[in-house]
Amino acid sequence: MRTIQWNTDLPAVEMIDQRRLPAAMEFISLKSHVEVAGAIRQMIVRGAPAIGAAAAFGLALAGYESDARTAPNLLADYDAAAKTLKASRPTAVNLAWAVDRVMTVIKERSPGRSIESIRGLALREAQRIADEDVEINRRMAEFGASLINDGDTVIHHCNTGALATVDWGTALGAIRMAHEQGKKIRVLVDETRPRLQGTRLTAWELEQYGVPYDIISDNMAGYFLKTGQVQAVLFGADRVAANGDVANKIGTYMLALAAQDNQVPAYAVVPTPTIDLSLAHGGLIPIEERDPSEVLGITYAGEQVAPKKASARNPAFDVTPARLVSAIVTEKGIVLPPYSPNLKEIVSRKP
Amino acid sequence: MRTIQWNTDLPAVEMIDQRRLPAAMEFISLKSHVEVAGAIRQMIVRGAPAIGAAAAFGLALAGYESDARTAPNLLADYDAAAKTLKASRPTAVNLAWAVDRVMTVIKERSPGRSIESIRGLALREAQRIADEDVEINRRMAEFGASLINDGDTVIHHCNTGALATVDWGTALGAIRMAHEQGKKIRVLVDETRPRLQGTRLTAWELEQYGVPYDIISDNMAGYFLKTGQVQAVLFGADRVAANGDVANKIGTYMLALAAQDNQVPAYAVVPTPTIDLSLAHGGLIPIEERDPSEVLGITYAGEQVAPKKASARNPAFDVTPARLVSAIVTEKGIVLPPYSPNLKEIVSRKP
Repeated sequence: MRTIQWNTDLPAVEMIDQRRLPAAMEFISLKSHVEVAGAIRQMIVRGAPAIGAAAAFGLALAGYESDARTAPNLLADYDAAAKTLKASRPTAVNLAWAVDRVMTVIKERSPGRSIESIRGLALREAQRIADEDVEINRRMAEFGASLINDGDTVIHHCNTGALATVDWGTALGAIRMAHEQGKKIRVLVDETRPRLQGTRLTAWELEQYGVPYDIISDNMAGYFLKTGQVQAVLFGADRVAANGDVANKIGTYMLALAAQDNQVPAYAVVPTPTIDLSLAHGGLIPIEERDPSEVLGITYAGEQVAPKKASARNPAFDVTPARLVSAIVTEKGIVLPPYSPNLKEIVSRKP
Repeated sequence: MRTIQWNTDLPAVEMIDQRRLPAAMEFISLKSHVEVAGAIRQMIVRGAPAIGAAAAFGLALAGYESDARTAPNLLADYDAAAKTLKASRPTAVNLAWAVDRVMTVIKERSPGRSIESIRGLALREAQRIADEDVEINRRMAEFGASLINDGDTVIHHCNTGALATVDWGTALGAIRMAHEQGKKIRVLVDETRPRLQGTRLTAWELEQYGVPYDIISDNMAGYFLKTGQVQAVLFGADRVAANGDVANKIGTYMLALAAQDNQVPAYAVVPTPTIDLSLAHGGLIPIEERDPSEVLGITYAGEQVAPKKASARNPAFDVTPARLVSAIVTEKGIVLPPYSPNLKEIVSRKP
């Protein structure tokens, strides 16, 4: 079962409604590219690879919606749909990349084809994007699982699972793979303030896979590391610089620091497209600061906990320096320090 | 204005109802020692010194409640009240200490005195406990403030303010004192998961004092330290071992670690009775694990965020190794490393 899939009968794009988790697991069926764009905008789907696949399927759907009788008219409809989809989350690099990839195939290979054949072209390319994501994630999960031993307790930060991709995920994929290989493991799930992706999504995913877990507040990780209860720390990444600095969800830096202080390895699990060789180091990565309400909005017994006029800061990401990262796990293999030459090599390596 | 005070007219013990903060600031008036014991049990008052002072006043109140006509009968009433008060929070060392101190004075100095005179004895001793706490905290605050410079931004963990003591507090007292000395400072308030004492109480106190602040999730401290936005980190302590290891609210260890990684000083502000020279190191301090519901109970739009059957761990404290503590600020002066000889000296030093 995938987070996002194509329904041939309708046709439609189907995806898990992440807003309803963990209270309910519901698939919603989107019957037009406008509905897909809306789902991306409303964060019914989140996670870069998942958004990319959703947008690609959305574009394929636009072909079936179109009542064009000629190839040029059909292409014009695809073009309009591509614009709508890209506008749904303008900063999502993966979204634009996936839409452009399908558009390129349509434009290059449509001459001389029938309407139905062009529709098939677009759909197959979208399907390929989704399949490739699953395959990349599965390979990353296998490399990552090789670093997890039978009996280990690991700490995981944020949500990096199937919900953020088409299937498997990155760091959580490695954990799930270790579990499926029969290793007895336990996960301490960082709740991941302020948006609580750990409590909301990672805990839910682990329940689906049957992996035992305990949720902890992010500030408890140091205690469990220091008392010898943890054998590895795993997280994903939003961006990796050429020197191995890792930009990831806020809190990753303090977690990696606590791991190092206790000689516990900290692994970043990332697909190679996330490695940005054009960035010399992590200090060059812009850090988005989000709305303070995410920090202040905690309620207890129905009342807001913070004083009414309280202010807050809310940086969404931090940069973990390469010296705190024990290894970077990719779909092409495990990268060890020194990162500058080794990341360069893995990026250029053929799959 | 003090957190806890005696009302001569009624008589009664008055205290801020901390359960109502920050939504409302209300004093409640407790007219019997049984009501005081109830307030301690229900955490209307919290923080070791505040509980101690409340219990001492509660015992004094028992004298005025008593209709005994003879000293032995009055003493029997005090004895019964002492038991009731001590049972309200059996693990609170400060509570037992304060009750015993008042009882000792009553027993040693009541012979030959009138009923009214004995009542006065007890009340004066309770008043002395409260006054001493204020004085100790004020001195600690002055030493602590000397480490904060004009223009500094500091990170503060948990609540260590007047609400946890009779007035001033420990780490937050130092911050307030620096502000009252005219230094322009800003505080990043760790929300302090899971019980959110930072968001609920410290932010409220800082508003009362007029100190500018921003609440942050605990896992954001590393980001602000690493980007050079913080000049000092301050926290209190539940217990300090002979070697300088500091047991304090969960999250202190990761915060101190992030401070050290960025060459920012981390200060523990603690009264000398908190220094336990009988403990060789912090590993010997037992760590209480509290109910998982404190971690799991976060709601969003009225719904619990965690999956229904989710489990959680909830250690309430951690131990920050002495190597991460830049100085220990006490009411008798600032203690620097090496801590083993220097803590011994400060504990034995006359005030």
